[in-house]
Amino acid sequence: MTDQCLSNPSAHLYLKGDARGGAFPFVVEPFSEDYTGRLSWRFLGNQLLRCASLHAGMCGFGYDDMQEAHHVWVLSRLVVELEEMPRTNEAYTIETWVSRIYRQFTDRLYAITGNDGRAYGFAHSTWALIDVQSRQPMELSTLPDDGFVRFLIDRDVPIKGAGRIRLKTDGEPARTLQAYYSDLDINGHVNSIRYIEMMLDLFPKSLYDATPVRRIEVAYSAESYCGDVLKIYTTDAGNGTHLVEIQKEGGVTVVKAAITFG
Amino acid sequence: MTDQCLSNPSAHLYLKGDARGGAFPFVVEPFSEDYTGRLSWRFLGNQLLRCASLHAGMCGFGYDDMQEAHHVWVLSRLVVELEEMPRTNEAYTIETWVSRIYRQFTDRLYAITGNDGRAYGFAHSTWALIDVQSRQPMELSTLPDDGFVRFLIDRDVPIKGAGRIRLKTDGEPARTLQAYYSDLDINGHVNSIRYIEMMLDLFPKSLYDATPVRRIEVAYSAESYCGDVLKIYTTDAGNGTHLVEIQKEGGVTVVKAAITFG
Repeated sequence: MTDQCLSNPSAHLYLKGDARGGAFPFVVEPFSEDYTGRLSWRFLGNQLLRCASLHAGMCGFGYDDMQEAHHVWVLSRLVVELEEMPRTNEAYTIETWVSRIYRQFTDRLYAITGNDGRAYGFAHSTWALIDVQSRQPMELSTLPDDGFVRFLIDRDVPIKGAGRIRLKTDGEPARTLQAYYSDLDINGHVNSIRYIEMMLDLFPKSLYDATPVRRIEVAYSAESYCGDVLKIYTTDAGNGTHLVEIQKEGGVTVVKAAITFG
Repeated sequence: MTDQCLSNPSAHLYLKGDARGGAFPFVVEPFSEDYTGRLSWRFLGNQLLRCASLHAGMCGFGYDDMQEAHHVWVLSRLVVELEEMPRTNEAYTIETWVSRIYRQFTDRLYAITGNDGRAYGFAHSTWALIDVQSRQPMELSTLPDDGFVRFLIDRDVPIKGAGRIRLKTDGEPARTLQAYYSDLDINGHVNSIRYIEMMLDLFPKSLYDATPVRRIEVAYSAESYCGDVLKIYTTDAGNGTHLVEIQKEGGVTVVKAAITFG
């Protein structure tokens, strides 16, 4: 997301036992905040993806490495839970490491920490490695040469992982919109983090005036493309949590999420 | 926009005669491109604003300095014309300087250059300094202590400046949308560059497949806020140029633009 990832000399890999984590320093720059003066979810989200990509690349299983084998990493789940979002000019570091491999999935965890040691928050993500030709996920635990097992770091994060998100979508959608040019990522799909923005945009400014978003949990099910009509359904689940589902034509679920203010 | 502005040791002021320009190096990072693999207009646009802000701050007439005097810089015109957009991992430098002060306006110019010396493009912007209390623009040429005159650099850019944009808006709008949370900048207004995205989103992907956007010219007339209903009108002016106007309630013009593909 930001140039500093690559250019800042303090971006680095670190050893934890035999395995390697990545640490990437950032500063909240003007024009990267939301109206409350804190880092926007769009920026943070894309930075989490960027750090995943950088760390994987440094370890030899990044986008380019996988592409040679006709494989591609696909984000399946993302949970971000924050004590608070950093403010303009505050420095923070995103640490990321791979904690687990199971069947067709791998868990990548994150800690977002201030320079004074405070924890801004944590994130939990789940990825699959898809074969480009067959579109089937690889069995990650049976890859040759032990696959990615040697990269595992046994360190957890103090937030709940992804749960099951269920909501009724038989009524009228809360909003219907279309995917356009500026929603697309380099693969021609709607950017994973853009869905989070679409969902955050369901809520009135008065809600953001009163309280920040504390936790976002997203389950990615299908890709959507330019021109797709997206129907967004939402249900208030109580305790500050709103469930959201985005469907494309044919009622196909693209994304489900639970968004918690508080 | 990116951390490198501040953290990269090669971001600097340079002398031109007695006056100072700013030079800010960037790299096109993954997750900052559009689907064609080139830097997105959103990123470039916000970087231009960020570089303006950094340069003004380094010269002593930045946001914080002006705020002390209860003044605020307001963007009035922005023209960006490109030979091409830089691609993923390409390095580029944004140079910016103030070229002119006249009555209530000042012109800030930009050159966007590759490390190999190639010109990616140029930009031309016009700003007013508004008194926060009266909402009136200041007479810039009669400010005490010669105002900003000593910062002027007599260097032009080889692109046409802002012209007059006229289109009919008595028919049906091409699109009607609403401003939401994620559209807002830190002042609670819709972000200046977000309007450019809204306008680029009028055009089908097939147009972007065929040809890039070569030039964008924007005239900012009024602010819009969260919840505002925005009507977007557009006319094909021929030769790849599309005129666009965004109005808020009451038919108030927020932004006009001329967007040229080619």
